[in-house]
Amino acid sequence: MHAYRSHTCAQLNSDHVGQNIRLAGWVHRVRDHGGVLFIDLRDHYGITQVIADADSPAFAGLNTVRAEWVICIDGLVKARDPSLVNPKLPTGQIEVYAREMRVLGEAAELPMPVFGEVDYPEETRLTYRFLDLRRDKLHSNMMLRSNVVRSIRNRMWDQGFNEFQTPIITASSPEGARDFLVPSRLHPGKFYALPQAPQQFKQLIMVAGFDRYFQIAPCFRDEDPRADRSPTDFYQLDIEMSFVEQEDVFAAVQPVIQGIFEEFAPGKKVYSDWTRIAYRDSLKWYGSDKPDLRNPIKMQDVSEHFRGSGFAIFAKLLEQEGTEVRAIPAPTGGSRKFCDRMNAYAQKEGLPGMGYIFWRKREEIAVDDDHMSPVIAALMGISEEDRIAHNSLLDKLSVLTDKLGIAEIVAALEANDLERVRFLTQAYFGEFEAAGPLAKNIGPVRTEAIRQQLGLGVGDAAFFLGGKAEQFEAVAGRARNEIGRELGLTEQNCFKFAWIVDFPMYEKTDDGKIDFSHNPFSMPQGGMEALNGDPLNVYAYQYDLACNGYELISGGIRNHKPEIMFKAFELAGYPNSEVEKRFGGMVKAFKYGAPPHGGCAAGIDRIVMLLADEANIREVIMFPMNQRAEDLLMGAPSEPMNAQLRELNLRVVPKE
Amino acid sequence: MHAYRSHTCAQLNSDHVGQNIRLAGWVHRVRDHGGVLFIDLRDHYGITQVIADADSPAFAGLNTVRAEWVICIDGLVKARDPSLVNPKLPTGQIEVYAREMRVLGEAAELPMPVFGEVDYPEETRLTYRFLDLRRDKLHSNMMLRSNVVRSIRNRMWDQGFNEFQTPIITASSPEGARDFLVPSRLHPGKFYALPQAPQQFKQLIMVAGFDRYFQIAPCFRDEDPRADRSPTDFYQLDIEMSFVEQEDVFAAVQPVIQGIFEEFAPGKKVYSDWTRIAYRDSLKWYGSDKPDLRNPIKMQDVSEHFRGSGFAIFAKLLEQEGTEVRAIPAPTGGSRKFCDRMNAYAQKEGLPGMGYIFWRKREEIAVDDDHMSPVIAALMGISEEDRIAHNSLLDKLSVLTDKLGIAEIVAALEANDLERVRFLTQAYFGEFEAAGPLAKNIGPVRTEAIRQQLGLGVGDAAFFLGGKAEQFEAVAGRARNEIGRELGLTEQNCFKFAWIVDFPMYEKTDDGKIDFSHNPFSMPQGGMEALNGDPLNVYAYQYDLACNGYELISGGIRNHKPEIMFKAFELAGYPNSEVEKRFGGMVKAFKYGAPPHGGCAAGIDRIVMLLADEANIREVIMFPMNQRAEDLLMGAPSEPMNAQLRELNLRVVPKE
Repeated sequence: MHAYRSHTCAQLNSDHVGQNIRLAGWVHRVRDHGGVLFIDLRDHYGITQVIADADSPAFAGLNTVRAEWVICIDGLVKARDPSLVNPKLPTGQIEVYAREMRVLGEAAELPMPVFGEVDYPEETRLTYRFLDLRRDKLHSNMMLRSNVVRSIRNRMWDQGFNEFQTPIITASSPEGARDFLVPSRLHPGKFYALPQAPQQFKQLIMVAGFDRYFQIAPCFRDEDPRADRSPTDFYQLDIEMSFVEQEDVFAAVQPVIQGIFEEFAPGKKVYSDWTRIAYRDSLKWYGSDKPDLRNPIKMQDVSEHFRGSGFAIFAKLLEQEGTEVRAIPAPTGGSRKFCDRMNAYAQKEGLPGMGYIFWRKREEIAVDDDHMSPVIAALMGISEEDRIAHNSLLDKLSVLTDKLGIAEIVAALEANDLERVRFLTQAYFGEFEAAGPLAKNIGPVRTEAIRQQLGLGVGDAAFFLGGKAEQFEAVAGRARNEIGRELGLTEQNCFKFAWIVDFPMYEKTDDGKIDFSHNPFSMPQGGMEALNGDPLNVYAYQYDLACNGYELISGGIRNHKPEIMFKAFELAGYPNSEVEKRFGGMVKAFKYGAPPHGGCAAGIDRIVMLLADEANIREVIMFPMNQRAEDLLMGAPSEPMNAQLRELNLRVVPKE
Repeated sequence: MHAYRSHTCAQLNSDHVGQNIRLAGWVHRVRDHGGVLFIDLRDHYGITQVIADADSPAFAGLNTVRAEWVICIDGLVKARDPSLVNPKLPTGQIEVYAREMRVLGEAAELPMPVFGEVDYPEETRLTYRFLDLRRDKLHSNMMLRSNVVRSIRNRMWDQGFNEFQTPIITASSPEGARDFLVPSRLHPGKFYALPQAPQQFKQLIMVAGFDRYFQIAPCFRDEDPRADRSPTDFYQLDIEMSFVEQEDVFAAVQPVIQGIFEEFAPGKKVYSDWTRIAYRDSLKWYGSDKPDLRNPIKMQDVSEHFRGSGFAIFAKLLEQEGTEVRAIPAPTGGSRKFCDRMNAYAQKEGLPGMGYIFWRKREEIAVDDDHMSPVIAALMGISEEDRIAHNSLLDKLSVLTDKLGIAEIVAALEANDLERVRFLTQAYFGEFEAAGPLAKNIGPVRTEAIRQQLGLGVGDAAFFLGGKAEQFEAVAGRARNEIGRELGLTEQNCFKFAWIVDFPMYEKTDDGKIDFSHNPFSMPQGGMEALNGDPLNVYAYQYDLACNGYELISGGIRNHKPEIMFKAFELAGYPNSEVEKRFGGMVKAFKYGAPPHGGCAAGIDRIVMLLADEANIREVIMFPMNQRAEDLLMGAPSEPMNAQLRELNLRVVPKE
């Protein structure tokens, strides 16, 4: 028999009853039922119940073991009493009667238990990561990650991609974030850098003639920590293809990502219609370039209804250039209580507040005047024939002239603007009554116009934010999420994707200069010709994949033509010499026959987080740093030895 | 039609004749056959011949393209004239008559050609790596590497292993080589290190309860460069398993490695009998712990034959303790010319030389005396009955007493030592005559004993090295390779494997101290008990896989018991506090329930080198460093910006 085990702790079932077997694993739990010991023995694969009574030669030994000891059991497989069968456990039909026990590894008093998965401070969990990882949730997360990466690879291979490894110790590649530097011993005073991404290398691979590249690539950025981001490194599915346009990349990527979500999110709906949304539309509609489309709310520009209105704040605001008023429709949100809560949310987020309107059913019209109902009904449905047939309408209206809005309606009737007659009647006497201070200020006509634009009805609400888009858009986006969540509008248990496209190539910085707004390596739509026009009107072949409010993928069709590249950088204020210096390898390569190419990169950690339903990246990484970029288990970073610094010709200088 | 191509450059065949297609790729070669242009268009997949004559609208454009331009061709597929069909090319049945041509990427004058694969200095090749990679050999090597890694992964998964990623930015782990350090910005004065191997992490993964781990892991060592080693990083197939003994690891690994060799070395024999050779036997027999077993030569200790012999150099040498004389048998090497060449080889390698003996057929005995032949024949085949029957033998011998060796033979006959009679007769009068100065010095009896021990015959030779094994063993091993190669004894077109086992745990250093001879984390055979004896007699559960003279794999069963670990380190002079400091994470983990575990690591670059038949590691890496650890394409390492150093609180000090 094998020295440690004849079976794993998930293998034994009623077929094995009567067999003498050997198991090894961790003591998950010990229960002493008055002279009979029940031990849950755990390994990577599962749990088996081991029992021993005083007749067993293993009894004395088993009496001494404690949680998380590693032991080896020789015993006999017995069927459990039918009343004790555990259908949830693959081994739930049997138990192992222990005859011999060997201790393979003792465990000291545990700083945190494994059994029960009690919540523990993160510092303890990271310091004793090897214990934390024994817990079921973390164990499952790691297995999920392993399987996801495996499946991604298979799917990429099946699509004709080849995986190539690119250098990890390489040159500094200024791509926005900070590099980690690595001092060179052989070249004193010089440094390598860890790659922020294999961007230049994957483009070089295309220039080298390989057609379809991918890599599960480690990326290194010396970043200030954030909960959903590792402070040191992360993994991405890095992809690049030659002789492609944007839609070719989409066509290659969608089956991989969608397949992964379908495979690893059983029971959750994975939408297959991946719409394209222009970057500027995404900001306008969702207040974000990574919209959560499970939430059906789509924001709209309602500036025209506030321009010159009685709501002075917005009316004045709109006199300034570049301002607008944005509405967040909130179907079913039509209660003052909800509206006030959302207003408070906006204030918490640093805005002066969100104005709102909500609609309730208008009831008082019909009762306050016997004449009203038929007249109003007639006006609302009025047509050319009606107007002629009901020539007496004007007479009837004359008796109602003291009513709000009647003068306007009469004027519209006389002007023969029947559509406006209907609209005004709806506004003043229709079934929807707008409530809230904003509605009072702008009056029923503007309010009704807003309602109609937003497609809302009784019981619904809308929130309003005004100013320059960049000042309120992010909060508006978060408020949209909050509203969708609070009102239960956001669909649960599903993944909804959209390609965000047409990113602007440039933006104006605060000091009025033109700079790249995103990736400088993307091809401008319209090529060289477009660059000769207004830079702020240039869009790039660049795209993100948004899923449930996260950016899963980012990519672009690359600028593979040196002359267009130099021009693109020149517009952003970089002379050719600077481009050659910063991206020398790639620029050089483009001069010797570069194919059109493009690709993207998908965040592996992010994908696994979504699939595992975790909000903290450390729950899907085997040995993560803490938020201060420290490895509490291994003790990194640490003081170097003097000899090491000497070899590197480095001296640490005190912080100024 | 797609913007760039309807087919790849390897897809078109006679089925496509008559179709209008679109191709894109690099101009591999242009030939102008008097008004007809022949262009070999190349992409990742293959080559298609494009033609254009003056009637083609594409002619003028194609007349301007040069090698390595990227172009797009619209054209008509035509069958080649039967006499022009190229059966070696998948597209050899057809050619594409170009109608339109677009330039997608121009190429400047090339610093090195792609077509023809002319040899170029490595500096040029590395500076223009993207051109070098377009060449068929390097392109194939990269595809081979990609496919090997893919296959390794699949084979590991099929065996129930899971791949997990371990940290790349981590703690310094002193494992023999130099760490690359990474300064921390958030913790001024502290440094991370890049892992020399994921050794501690994979052991922690076992302690964390995962059963079978693997990873294609990047490893980082700041090493002084060597041709077959990268000066910065390399990749290994890293493996670890719980609840295993040495043979379990072998059983898991062999199918993977053997499968890879069978899959990717078509036409080469892959031996499936992976013998186990004890480390000390390997050194003795092959002068190396990574023997090339394709070479059948097995060295032997022949000290006894030289002790007190007439060859004073060896005889004196053997009076010193710890010395020996080792023979390298050289079947078919029995010529003075060959022996002298090998002797010169040893001198070139820094030894005083190699003594040698070679054997030729003895011819003069039978002719010089009529009496001799029958007598000798009788003596050589002598048995008890013969001795009695041939009592006259003594009489007959008496007339031959002036012959060399007869006195010895007579003495043996009288002592009734028939085996010695036969041996001496063989030595003095047998068919094998030993030649060379060494043979003369030690005489025919010792020479014959050596011949018999080594199993050599006419036409064979043997070389001799004396001294302390560690002083000559390495040269002996290399001489063995040289001999096997020169004599054509080494089998070609095959891979032969052996597990080298039973590595000594400790060795005596030059200053007489005890230190680990290999991996300090391996479990000593015999556990704690063995450590209480003579450390130099302790063997470790540690093993290497040798293949064709290379070490492909190294591994061990780990020491998972803290008390044995502390004791093992104590013997090597490390107090507990030092062990806790250096390997804190792992030692801590072992205190909380560690399973028995073991594993190994296989060199990916090495495996691909063997399969691609390359001697230089840079031929199997996409973007390698040169031997001075410089990336000539990307310009690494480079001077950091002052701001970067300031952020890291570092100053470069001038070399003292």
